[in-house]
Amino acid sequence: MPGLFLSLEGIDGSGKSTQGRLLAERLRAAGHAVTLTREPGGSPGAEEIRRLVLEGHVDRWSAETEILLFTAARRDHLEKTIRPALARDEIVITDRFADSTRVFQGLARGDLTETVNRLHDLMIGIEPDLTLLFDLDPAVGLARATARPGAELRFEDMGLAFQERARAGFLALAAQNARFRVIDADADAETVGARAWAAVAPHLPQA
Amino acid sequence: MPGLFLSLEGIDGSGKSTQGRLLAERLRAAGHAVTLTREPGGSPGAEEIRRLVLEGHVDRWSAETEILLFTAARRDHLEKTIRPALARDEIVITDRFADSTRVFQGLARGDLTETVNRLHDLMIGIEPDLTLLFDLDPAVGLARATARPGAELRFEDMGLAFQERARAGFLALAAQNARFRVIDADADAETVGARAWAAVAPHLPQA
Repeated sequence: MPGLFLSLEGIDGSGKSTQGRLLAERLRAAGHAVTLTREPGGSPGAEEIRRLVLEGHVDRWSAETEILLFTAARRDHLEKTIRPALARDEIVITDRFADSTRVFQGLARGDLTETVNRLHDLMIGIEPDLTLLFDLDPAVGLARATARPGAELRFEDMGLAFQERARAGFLALAAQNARFRVIDADADAETVGARAWAAVAPHLPQA
Repeated sequence: MPGLFLSLEGIDGSGKSTQGRLLAERLRAAGHAVTLTREPGGSPGAEEIRRLVLEGHVDRWSAETEILLFTAARRDHLEKTIRPALARDEIVITDRFADSTRVFQGLARGDLTETVNRLHDLMIGIEPDLTLLFDLDPAVGLARATARPGAELRFEDMGLAFQERARAGFLALAAQNARFRVIDADADAETVGARAWAAVAPHLPQA
Protein backbone atom coordinates (compact mmCIF):
# COMPACT_ATOMS: atom_id res chain seq x y z
CA MET A 1 0.00 0.00 0.00
CA PRO A 2 1.76 3.17 -1.16
CA GLY A 3 1.70 6.35 0.92
CA LEU A 4 -0.02 9.59 -0.01
CA PHE A 5 1.26 13.09 0.76
CA LEU A 6 -1.59 15.55 1.23
CA SER A 7 -1.35 19.23 2.16
CA LEU A 8 -4.10 21.59 3.37
CA GLU A 9 -3.74 25.25 2.48
CA GLY A 10 -5.70 28.47 2.88
CA ILE A 11 -5.81 31.79 4.68
CA ASP A 12 -6.15 32.05 8.46
CA GLY A 13 -9.58 31.00 9.66
CA SER A 14 -10.33 28.95 6.53
CA GLY A 15 -11.01 25.85 8.64
CA LYS A 16 -7.95 23.83 7.54
CA SER A 17 -7.14 22.53 11.01
CA THR A 18 -10.67 21.36 11.76
CA GLN A 19 -10.87 19.74 8.32
CA GLY A 20 -7.52 18.02 8.87
CA ARG A 21 -8.83 16.39 12.03
CA LEU A 22 -12.10 15.32 10.38
CA LEU A 23 -10.27 13.92 7.38
CA ALA A 24 -7.79 11.99 9.55
CA GLU A 25 -10.67 10.49 11.58
CA ARG A 26 -12.54 9.43 8.47
CA LEU A 27 -9.42 7.92 6.87
CA ARG A 28 -8.56 5.99 10.04
CA ALA A 29 -12.14 4.71 10.26
CA ALA A 30 -11.67 3.44 6.69
CA GLY A 31 -8.57 1.50 7.77
CA HIS A 32 -5.77 3.84 6.66
CA ALA A 33 -2.70 4.64 8.74
CA VAL A 34 -2.55 8.45 8.97
CA THR A 35 0.02 10.96 10.19
CA LEU A 36 -1.65 14.34 10.82
CA THR A 37 0.90 17.12 11.13
CA ARG A 38 1.28 20.87 10.62
CA GLU A 39 3.63 23.67 9.62
CA PRO A 40 5.49 25.55 10.77
CA GLY A 41 6.27 22.73 13.16
CA GLY A 42 5.45 19.05 12.90
CA SER A 43 8.65 17.75 14.54
CA PRO A 44 10.19 18.70 17.91
CA GLY A 45 12.94 20.80 16.30
CA ALA A 46 10.55 22.46 13.85
CA GLU A 47 8.14 23.30 16.69
CA GLU A 48 10.97 25.19 18.41
CA ILE A 49 11.63 27.12 15.20
CA ARG A 50 7.85 27.74 14.92
CA ARG A 51 7.84 29.47 18.31
CA LEU A 52 10.74 31.66 17.20
CA VAL A 53 8.90 32.73 14.02
CA LEU A 54 5.31 33.12 15.18
CA GLU A 55 5.76 34.94 18.48
CA GLY A 56 6.88 38.54 18.94
CA HIS A 57 6.43 41.65 16.79
CA VAL A 58 5.16 41.52 13.21
CA ASP A 59 8.41 43.08 11.98
CA ARG A 60 10.74 41.06 14.18
CA TRP A 61 12.19 39.24 11.16
CA SER A 62 12.59 40.42 7.59
CA ALA A 63 10.71 38.43 4.94
CA GLU A 64 14.03 36.90 3.82
CA THR A 65 14.99 35.72 7.33
CA GLU A 66 11.48 34.39 7.85
CA ILE A 67 11.72 32.38 4.61
CA LEU A 68 14.98 30.84 5.82
CA LEU A 69 13.49 29.94 9.23
CA PHE A 70 10.39 28.40 7.65
CA THR A 71 12.59 26.43 5.27
CA ALA A 72 14.77 25.18 8.15
CA ALA A 73 11.64 24.07 10.03
CA ARG A 74 10.29 22.41 6.85
CA ARG A 75 13.52 20.52 6.27
CA ASP A 76 13.42 19.15 9.84
CA HIS A 77 9.71 18.32 9.51
CA LEU A 78 10.38 16.51 6.23
CA GLU A 79 13.30 14.48 7.62
CA LYS A 80 11.84 13.61 11.01
CA THR A 81 8.09 13.25 10.32
CA ILE A 82 6.95 13.27 6.68
CA ARG A 83 9.51 11.04 4.96
CA PRO A 84 9.48 8.37 7.72
CA ALA A 85 5.64 8.23 7.59
CA LEU A 86 5.61 7.95 3.78
CA ALA A 87 8.25 5.21 4.06
CA ARG A 88 5.77 3.34 6.32
CA ASP A 89 3.18 3.78 3.50
CA GLU A 90 1.02 6.08 5.63
CA ILE A 91 -1.21 8.92 4.47
CA VAL A 92 0.46 12.16 5.56
CA ILE A 93 -1.84 15.17 6.03
CA THR A 94 0.02 18.40 6.70
CA ASP A 95 -1.76 21.59 7.74
CA ARG A 96 0.28 23.97 5.51
CA PHE A 97 3.43 23.18 3.51
CA ALA A 98 5.58 25.08 0.99
CA ASP A 99 2.63 26.80 -0.70
CA SER A 100 2.06 28.81 2.50
CA THR A 101 5.60 30.12 2.28
CA ARG A 102 5.13 30.91 -1.41
CA VAL A 103 2.01 32.90 -0.60
CA PHE A 104 2.68 34.55 2.76
CA GLN A 105 6.35 35.39 2.18
CA GLY A 106 6.64 35.13 -1.57
CA LEU A 107 3.60 37.00 -2.79
CA ALA A 108 1.98 38.87 0.02
CA ARG A 109 5.08 40.62 1.40
CA GLY A 110 6.80 41.84 -1.75
CA ASP A 111 7.94 39.87 -4.76
CA LEU A 112 10.12 37.16 -3.26
CA THR A 113 8.47 34.35 -5.20
CA GLU A 114 11.62 33.55 -7.17
CA THR A 115 13.71 33.42 -3.97
CA VAL A 116 11.18 31.16 -2.25
CA ASN A 117 11.09 28.81 -5.23
CA ARG A 118 14.87 28.61 -5.60
CA LEU A 119 15.26 27.95 -1.88
CA HIS A 120 12.59 25.25 -2.04
CA ASP A 121 14.26 23.53 -5.00
CA LEU A 122 17.66 23.67 -3.28
CA MET A 123 16.70 22.50 0.22
CA ILE A 124 13.28 20.75 0.12
CA GLY A 125 12.62 19.45 -3.40
CA ILE A 126 9.32 17.61 -2.76
CA GLU A 127 5.69 18.63 -3.45
CA PRO A 128 2.51 17.03 -2.07
CA ASP A 129 0.66 14.51 -4.24
CA LEU A 130 -2.53 16.49 -3.62
CA THR A 131 -3.23 19.93 -2.13
CA LEU A 132 -6.63 20.99 -0.81
CA LEU A 133 -7.09 24.76 -0.88
CA PHE A 134 -9.85 25.84 1.54
CA ASP A 135 -11.06 29.02 -0.09
CA LEU A 136 -13.01 31.65 1.86
CA ASP A 137 -13.79 35.37 1.90
CA PRO A 138 -10.99 36.85 4.08
CA ALA A 139 -13.49 38.89 6.13
CA VAL A 140 -15.10 35.64 7.27
CA GLY A 141 -11.72 33.94 7.80
CA LEU A 142 -10.29 36.83 9.81
CA ALA A 143 -13.32 36.96 12.10
CA ARG A 144 -12.97 33.22 12.77
CA ALA A 145 -9.19 33.43 13.34
CA THR A 146 -9.24 36.35 15.76
CA ALA A 147 -12.06 34.73 17.76
CA ARG A 148 -9.71 31.82 18.57
CA PRO A 149 -7.71 31.81 21.81
CA GLY A 150 -3.91 31.76 21.59
CA ALA A 151 -0.91 34.03 21.22
CA GLU A 152 0.11 33.30 17.62
CA LEU A 153 -1.39 36.42 16.09
CA ARG A 154 1.52 37.62 13.99
CA PHE A 155 -0.14 36.91 10.66
CA GLU A 156 -3.66 37.73 11.76
CA ASP A 157 -2.33 41.10 12.95
CA MET A 158 -1.40 41.93 9.39
CA GLY A 159 -5.06 42.62 8.63
CA LEU A 160 -7.70 42.11 6.01
CA ALA A 161 -5.85 43.57 3.00
CA PHE A 162 -2.98 41.15 3.69
CA GLN A 163 -5.36 38.19 3.83
CA GLU A 164 -6.98 39.31 0.58
CA ARG A 165 -3.60 39.29 -1.17
CA ALA A 166 -2.94 35.87 0.37
CA ARG A 167 -6.25 34.48 -0.93
CA ALA A 168 -5.45 35.74 -4.43
CA GLY A 169 -1.99 34.20 -4.15
CA PHE A 170 -3.37 30.80 -3.19
CA LEU A 171 -5.91 30.89 -6.03
CA ALA A 172 -3.17 31.80 -8.50
CA LEU A 173 -1.06 28.83 -7.34
CA ALA A 174 -4.10 26.55 -7.66
CA ALA A 175 -4.64 27.74 -11.23
CA GLN A 176 -1.03 26.89 -12.10
CA ASN A 177 -0.63 23.49 -10.42
CA ALA A 178 -2.61 20.35 -11.26
CA ARG A 179 -2.16 18.92 -7.73
CA PHE A 180 -4.55 21.56 -6.28
CA ARG A 181 -8.26 21.09 -5.53
CA VAL A 182 -10.12 24.27 -4.51
CA ILE A 183 -12.71 23.61 -1.76
CA ASP A 184 -15.42 26.22 -1.06
CA ALA A 185 -14.94 26.64 2.71
CA ASP A 186 -17.86 29.02 3.37
CA ALA A 187 -20.18 26.43 4.94
CA ASP A 188 -20.49 24.41 8.16
CA ALA A 189 -17.67 21.95 8.98
CA GLU A 190 -19.70 18.89 7.96
CA THR A 191 -20.51 20.27 4.52
CA VAL A 192 -16.93 21.39 3.89
CA GLY A 193 -15.77 17.98 5.13
CA ALA A 194 -17.93 16.23 2.54
CA ARG A 195 -16.42 18.43 -0.19
CA ALA A 196 -12.90 17.62 1.03
CA TRP A 197 -13.64 13.89 1.13
CA ALA A 198 -14.94 13.97 -2.43
CA ALA A 199 -11.66 15.56 -3.53
CA VAL A 200 -9.46 13.10 -1.65
CA ALA A 201 -11.32 9.81 -2.24
CA PRO A 202 -10.19 9.24 -5.87
CA HIS A 203 -6.55 9.42 -4.73
CA LEU A 204 -6.71 6.97 -1.85
CA PRO A 205 -4.70 3.80 -1.90
CA GLN A 206 -6.75 0.64 -1.19
CA ALA A 207 -6.92 0.22 2.60
CA MET B 1 35.91 57.55 5.93
CA PRO B 2 34.75 54.28 4.35
CA GLY B 3 33.89 51.24 6.45
CA LEU B 4 35.83 47.97 6.51
CA PHE B 5 34.31 44.50 6.88
CA LEU B 6 36.69 42.10 8.62
CA SER B 7 36.03 38.48 9.59
CA LEU B 8 38.02 36.25 11.95
CA GLU B 9 38.02 32.53 11.24
CA GLY B 10 39.62 29.38 12.58
CA ILE B 11 38.94 26.15 14.47
CA ASP B 12 37.65 26.11 18.05
CA GLY B 13 40.30 27.30 20.50
CA SER B 14 42.29 29.16 17.85
CA GLY B 15 42.10 32.40 19.85
CA LYS B 16 39.79 34.30 17.47
CA SER B 17 37.63 35.77 20.21
CA THR B 18 40.53 37.05 22.27
CA GLN B 19 42.14 38.47 19.15
CA GLY B 20 38.90 40.17 18.16
CA ARG B 21 38.79 42.00 21.49
CA LEU B 22 42.47 43.00 21.27
CA LEU B 23 42.05 44.21 17.70
CA ALA B 24 38.92 46.23 18.53
CA GLU B 25 40.73 47.90 21.47
CA ARG B 26 43.72 48.80 19.36
CA LEU B 27 41.56 50.17 16.53
CA ARG B 28 39.50 52.27 18.94
CA ALA B 29 42.68 53.60 20.56
CA ALA B 30 43.75 54.66 17.04
CA GLY B 31 40.49 56.61 16.63
CA HIS B 32 38.38 54.17 14.59
CA ALA B 33 34.70 53.45 15.27
CA VAL B 34 34.45 49.65 15.66
CA THR B 35 31.55 47.19 15.85
CA LEU B 36 32.79 43.88 17.30
CA THR B 37 30.33 41.08 16.69
CA ARG B 38 30.14 37.31 16.30
CA GLU B 39 28.39 34.42 14.59
CA PRO B 40 26.21 32.56 14.99
CA GLY B 41 24.54 35.53 16.66
CA GLY B 42 25.44 39.20 16.53
CA SER B 43 21.86 40.56 16.66
CA PRO B 44 19.06 39.79 19.14
CA GLY B 45 17.18 37.56 16.68
CA ALA B 46 20.35 35.78 15.53
CA GLU B 47 21.37 35.14 19.15
CA GLU B 48 18.06 33.32 19.66
CA ILE B 49 18.75 31.20 16.60
CA ARG B 50 22.29 30.62 17.94
CA ARG B 51 20.89 29.08 21.12
CA LEU B 52 18.68 26.80 19.05
CA VAL B 53 21.64 25.57 16.97
CA LEU B 54 24.42 25.27 19.52
CA GLU B 55 22.63 23.67 22.46
CA GLY B 56 21.41 20.09 22.64
CA HIS B 57 22.66 16.87 21.06
CA VAL B 58 25.30 16.80 18.31
CA ASP B 59 22.83 15.13 15.93
CA ARG B 60 19.82 17.22 16.87
CA TRP B 61 19.73 18.84 13.43
CA SER B 62 20.84 17.45 10.08
CA ALA B 63 23.65 19.30 8.32
CA GLU B 64 21.11 20.73 5.85
CA THR B 65 18.80 22.10 8.58
CA GLU B 66 21.82 23.49 10.40
CA ILE B 67 22.95 25.32 7.24
CA LEU B 68 19.49 26.90 6.91
CA LEU B 69 19.47 28.00 10.56
CA PHE B 70 22.96 29.48 10.30
CA THR B 71 21.97 31.29 7.12
CA ALA B 72 18.80 32.67 8.77
CA ALA B 73 20.91 33.92 11.69
CA ARG B 74 23.45 35.41 9.25
CA ARG B 75 20.76 37.23 7.30
CA ASP B 76 19.41 38.81 10.50
CA HIS B 77 22.95 39.67 11.66
CA LEU B 78 23.70 41.27 8.30
CA GLU B 79 20.48 43.34 8.26
CA LYS B 80 20.44 44.42 11.88
CA THR B 81 24.13 44.80 12.77
CA ILE B 82 26.67 44.57 9.94
CA ARG B 83 25.08 46.70 7.19
CA PRO B 84 23.99 49.50 9.55
CA ALA B 85 27.54 49.69 11.00
CA LEU B 86 29.15 49.74 7.54
CA ALA B 87 26.66 52.46 6.55
CA ARG B 88 27.99 54.49 9.51
CA ASP B 89 31.52 53.93 8.04
CA GLU B 90 32.58 51.78 10.99
CA ILE B 91 35.06 48.92 11.01
CA VAL B 92 33.06 45.72 11.52
CA ILE B 93 34.93 42.78 13.06
CA THR B 94 32.94 39.55 13.11
CA ASP B 95 34.08 36.46 14.97
CA ARG B 96 33.11 33.92 12.24
CA PHE B 97 31.09 34.56 9.09
CA ALA B 98 30.13 32.48 6.03
CA ASP B 99 33.51 30.71 5.80
CA SER B 100 32.69 28.91 9.06
CA THR B 101 29.51 27.52 7.49
CA ARG B 102 31.47 26.53 4.37
CA VAL B 103 33.96 24.62 6.51
CA PHE B 104 31.93 23.17 9.38
CA GLN B 105 28.82 22.23 7.40
CA GLY B 106 30.10 22.28 3.84
CA LEU B 107 33.35 20.39 4.09
CA ALA B 108 33.65 18.68 7.42
CA ARG B 109 30.22 16.98 7.50
CA GLY B 110 29.93 15.58 4.01
CA ASP B 111 30.16 17.33 0.69
CA LEU B 112 27.58 20.11 1.01
CA THR B 113 29.94 22.81 -0.25
CA GLU B 114 27.87 23.46 -3.37
CA THR B 115 24.65 23.74 -1.33
CA VAL B 116 26.29 26.14 1.14
CA ASN B 117 27.62 28.32 -1.67
CA ARG B 118 24.33 28.45 -3.57
CA LEU B 119 22.45 29.31 -0.38
CA HIS B 120 24.98 32.04 0.40
CA ASP B 121 24.70 33.55 -3.09
CA LEU B 122 20.89 33.46 -2.90
CA MET B 123 20.33 34.86 0.62
CA ILE B 124 23.52 36.64 1.80
CA GLY B 125 25.59 37.74 -1.19
CA ILE B 126 28.37 39.67 0.62
CA GLU B 127 31.93 38.66 1.55
CA PRO B 128 34.28 40.38 4.01
CA ASP B 129 36.89 42.79 2.66
CA LEU B 130 39.51 40.91 4.66
CA THR B 131 39.50 37.56 6.51
CA LEU B 132 42.05 36.63 9.15
CA LEU B 133 42.46 32.86 9.53
CA PHE B 134 43.95 31.99 12.93
CA ASP B 135 45.71 28.73 12.14
CA LEU B 136 46.62 26.24 14.85
CA ASP B 137 47.27 22.53 15.44
CA PRO B 138 43.81 21.16 16.35
CA ALA B 139 45.21 19.26 19.35
CA VAL B 140 46.24 22.60 20.87
CA GLY B 141 42.95 24.28 19.86
CA LEU B 142 40.80 21.49 21.25
CA ALA B 143 42.61 21.52 24.60
CA ARG B 144 42.07 25.28 24.84
CA ALA B 145 38.38 25.08 23.81
CA THR B 146 37.40 22.29 26.20
CA ALA B 147 39.14 24.06 29.09
CA ARG B 148 36.69 26.98 28.68
CA PRO B 149 33.53 27.15 30.77
CA GLY B 150 30.14 27.15 29.01
CA ALA B 151 27.55 24.81 27.59
CA GLU B 152 28.12 25.31 23.86
CA LEU B 153 30.10 22.14 23.29
CA ARG B 154 28.29 20.75 20.24
CA PHE B 155 31.19 21.34 17.88
CA GLU B 156 33.93 20.62 20.34
CA ASP B 157 32.23 17.27 21.09
CA MET B 158 32.83 16.22 17.53
CA GLY B 159 36.46 15.54 18.37
CA LEU B 160 39.97 15.93 17.05
CA ALA B 161 39.50 14.28 13.64
CA PHE B 162 36.63 16.70 12.94
CA GLN B 163 38.79 19.71 13.88
CA GLU B 164 41.59 18.42 11.67
CA ARG B 165 39.24 18.29 8.68
CA ALA B 166 38.03 21.79 9.60
CA ARG B 167 41.59 23.14 9.70
CA ALA B 168 42.30 21.66 6.27
CA GLY B 169 39.04 23.18 5.00
CA PHE B 170 39.96 26.66 6.24
CA LEU B 171 43.44 26.43 4.72
CA ALA B 172 41.93 25.34 1.38
CA LEU B 173 39.57 28.35 1.40
CA ALA B 174 42.50 30.64 2.23
CA ALA B 175 44.46 29.25 -0.73
CA GLN B 176 41.53 30.00 -3.07
CA ASN B 177 40.51 33.50 -1.89
CA ALA B 178 42.69 36.60 -2.03
CA ARG B 179 40.84 38.22 0.91
CA PHE B 180 42.41 35.71 3.37
CA ARG B 181 45.48 36.28 5.56
CA VAL B 182 46.71 33.20 7.45
CA ILE B 183 47.94 34.03 10.97
CA ASP B 184 50.09 31.52 12.89
CA ALA B 185 48.10 31.31 16.15
CA ASP B 186 50.45 29.02 18.08
CA ALA B 187 51.94 31.72 20.31
CA ASP B 188 50.93 33.95 23.23
CA ALA B 189 48.05 36.39 22.67
CA GLU B 190 50.34 39.43 22.42
CA THR B 191 52.52 37.85 19.70
CA VAL B 192 49.48 36.65 17.72
CA GLY B 193 47.94 40.10 18.17
CA ALA B 194 51.00 41.74 16.61
CA ARG B 195 50.74 39.35 13.64
CA ALA B 196 47.03 40.18 13.24
CA TRP B 197 47.71 43.92 13.42
CA ALA B 198 50.38 43.67 10.72
CA ALA B 199 47.82 41.95 8.46
CA VAL B 200 45.07 44.50 9.11
CA ALA B 201 47.05 47.76 9.16
CA PRO B 202 47.52 48.10 5.36
CA HIS B 203 43.72 47.94 4.90
CA LEU B 204 42.71 50.58 7.43
CA PRO B 205 40.94 53.72 6.38
CA GLN B 206 42.54 56.93 7.70
CA ALA B 207 41.14 57.58 11.20
